[in-house]
Amino acid sequence: MEFSKINTPQRVKVALLGCGTVGGGVIRLLRDNAEHLAARVGAELEIAHVLVRDTSKQRVPECLPGWLTTDPEVVLNDPSVDVVLELMGGEHPAKSLVERALESGKGVVSANKFLLAKHGPALIARAAQRGVDLAFEASVGGGIPVIRTLRDSLTSDWVSSIHALLNGTCNYILTRMRQEGLPFESILADAQRLGYAEADPALDVDGHDAAQKLVVLAMLAFGAELVGEVHTEGIRDLDETDFRFAERFGFTIKHLAVGIDRGEQLELRVHPALVPQANPLASIHGVLNGVFIHGRALGPCLLVGRGAGEMPTAVSVVADLVDVARARVEGASGLATRAIRTKKKQLMPLGELEARYYLRFDVRDEPGVLGTIASELGKHNISVEQMVQEGRGSPGATVPVLMITHRSREAAVDAALSAVAKAGFLARKPRLLRIEEF
Amino acid sequence: MEFSKINTPQRVKVALLGCGTVGGGVIRLLRDNAEHLAARVGAELEIAHVLVRDTSKQRVPECLPGWLTTDPEVVLNDPSVDVVLELMGGEHPAKSLVERALESGKGVVSANKFLLAKHGPALIARAAQRGVDLAFEASVGGGIPVIRTLRDSLTSDWVSSIHALLNGTCNYILTRMRQEGLPFESILADAQRLGYAEADPALDVDGHDAAQKLVVLAMLAFGAELVGEVHTEGIRDLDETDFRFAERFGFTIKHLAVGIDRGEQLELRVHPALVPQANPLASIHGVLNGVFIHGRALGPCLLVGRGAGEMPTAVSVVADLVDVARARVEGASGLATRAIRTKKKQLMPLGELEARYYLRFDVRDEPGVLGTIASELGKHNISVEQMVQEGRGSPGATVPVLMITHRSREAAVDAALSAVAKAGFLARKPRLLRIEEF
Repeated sequence: MEFSKINTPQRVKVALLGCGTVGGGVIRLLRDNAEHLAARVGAELEIAHVLVRDTSKQRVPECLPGWLTTDPEVVLNDPSVDVVLELMGGEHPAKSLVERALESGKGVVSANKFLLAKHGPALIARAAQRGVDLAFEASVGGGIPVIRTLRDSLTSDWVSSIHALLNGTCNYILTRMRQEGLPFESILADAQRLGYAEADPALDVDGHDAAQKLVVLAMLAFGAELVGEVHTEGIRDLDETDFRFAERFGFTIKHLAVGIDRGEQLELRVHPALVPQANPLASIHGVLNGVFIHGRALGPCLLVGRGAGEMPTAVSVVADLVDVARARVEGASGLATRAIRTKKKQLMPLGELEARYYLRFDVRDEPGVLGTIASELGKHNISVEQMVQEGRGSPGATVPVLMITHRSREAAVDAALSAVAKAGFLARKPRLLRIEEF
Repeated sequence: MEFSKINTPQRVKVALLGCGTVGGGVIRLLRDNAEHLAARVGAELEIAHVLVRDTSKQRVPECLPGWLTTDPEVVLNDPSVDVVLELMGGEHPAKSLVERALESGKGVVSANKFLLAKHGPALIARAAQRGVDLAFEASVGGGIPVIRTLRDSLTSDWVSSIHALLNGTCNYILTRMRQEGLPFESILADAQRLGYAEADPALDVDGHDAAQKLVVLAMLAFGAELVGEVHTEGIRDLDETDFRFAERFGFTIKHLAVGIDRGEQLELRVHPALVPQANPLASIHGVLNGVFIHGRALGPCLLVGRGAGEMPTAVSVVADLVDVARARVEGASGLATRAIRTKKKQLMPLGELEARYYLRFDVRDEPGVLGTIASELGKHNISVEQMVQEGRGSPGATVPVLMITHRSREAAVDAALSAVAKAGFLARKPRLLRIEEF
């Protein structure tokens, strides 16, 4: 075999913006696989700059001190830089640096879900106009090739739905809550100790991280530039009772991100849900992420892997870098990015959702309670498929009443729950969990 | 957004070799997604010829009669044809047509696992020398983007192992045997009636189809040009007793294709195996395929989807066509194919395998039998972790004795089973199933 392009003097110069754990992994992969990568790109990849906040900080030994700079102008004003890898995260200064890199004709690879979720369509349009590429496999699902699958493999297909576990921290906590029957707070504390949860866990456990990733997936899968906010619920309220009864009814509780094409509207939501135990997503445990795609022609397709972490994310960054660099070598920059087309899409109001529901009422154990609940549900046309009332405690104690409804409209369920709440026998707000069957 | 390249008069001419169900799906996808595909490729895709055996046969309405020809020379001698889609299957005449197409500088997309398994490295070398592309996503796993993932996403990574369900017919039969407790033959008959199994089921149920696909995956994942034959077992011998005890021990029986990098050697094998019920592959039911990849940097990655069928396979063919066509438009043909590098690899002898084993002895129910079995296992250093002997029947009746061993060397287990077989109390050959934990 001949590798004619390797022997040409051509090089692709790369700059890293940020050099945390993922940046260190990228530098390591570029060094360890230099020859193989050059064969794929048709030119050698050469690191020119690494933008950091503090040049004195200890980094991976493969990171040469001469690369380091704290001045973004050094990177942006260097016309020899071909591709910029944005590994900073957050909105500022990542957004303006990416915009300026695109403007100056550089290709960009970003691992920044927040940036893509908030400004993806605008940045893609800017890259397309400028004739350069913006790639972002690492922004969702770490090492799972979900962006690539949506973008490339489905070139000729239409995605009808996505059901995904997009947050490893949530999946880790729920897996252990289910296995060990311990409360949320104690598993969270353990996860923080083990490095699976941040000191401030809100972004993860309240669902915002998953919601940002869902917006990025929806942009590719449905060509959606969203109007409005994704309905987002976290996992703090779940307890051992929910897990126990979910199991009893044949389900597992997972923190799901759901996207469904509803024609003119898009159904997007992030929340804990009951998934049948036989569903493949139910078997994805611990910090793993999973994305279940349903394509019109493709049928079902499930992708599972590590959703975060230094090396899996670095693998995705380097795969994108190879694509972007190769397109530059070939003089074909921008083609892959131009093919991503988005248009404004309205979100379907959550009240219009139809699903089966798990309802939990923590009630004072007194006569007539069940009758009141049942009659309010009946008034709202909600029929109950299964009901369990825990064995009676002492008189006046709080006991849970659990129900699985037949398929109902969420607006009606909400109205019924509000009516029940007024009756005064509830120890706390009723719990509603959606049952997802796909 | 501008799509400058679409407005150029440039076209990529495509010829189909074969027009069965997958070919019909491809033609349909090319028509339905013409605009989107042109944007991705940078040029319109135009079908020039469709090679068939019988021009009078009824085809999808999108297939224009003017395309049809029974003469391969019409396709191969047309210099305007850029890309050939080989959808014939089998070795002849597919091999020589693909070779001639590559020689004449055409890109080739093939869905032919047999061709790739038997001649993959040679065809890839030929394509690379000629500076054209040979793409084959559809040859393994239908619509699952496994080739693309191995080739592109893992550009910077090394695959350490693959565990896969590669044959939908086997998975369908085993799923129903487990769920319904019916014998192999009756489920097979049903599968044939429903179109999930061929009239001659040998290729599927004896494991050869999965073995061919494993060879193709090993070529990409491990850069392996195989020396020797993959150890291949089918599913005909399994019965209700195996399923019952597998479940009792906490496992599910799946037909697995396994590939593990053992340094200088490669461990490749295809056989039914016991998979822990909590393993994600255990939840992949029916005709679905699944590929579990472990990358050194990536960690675990699981891909699941329809492994066969008109539209999923057609989606993969079109995704490949887009890549190959785009590389031609860009003047960068052959780069993706050249990056696939293979070298000769020896297979690890199966006797060197170390695993836990499920052993089943169907014995005449008489005193001393268990002692003989246990002592033969002991002599070969095989220690038993669990043992179950079915409730005694009438004296002299056949009863199964089931064992799960601790980790043992397969050569030792084979020797022990041969020694037990000599004792004369076995109603049939002992059954050995490997336990796969990954």
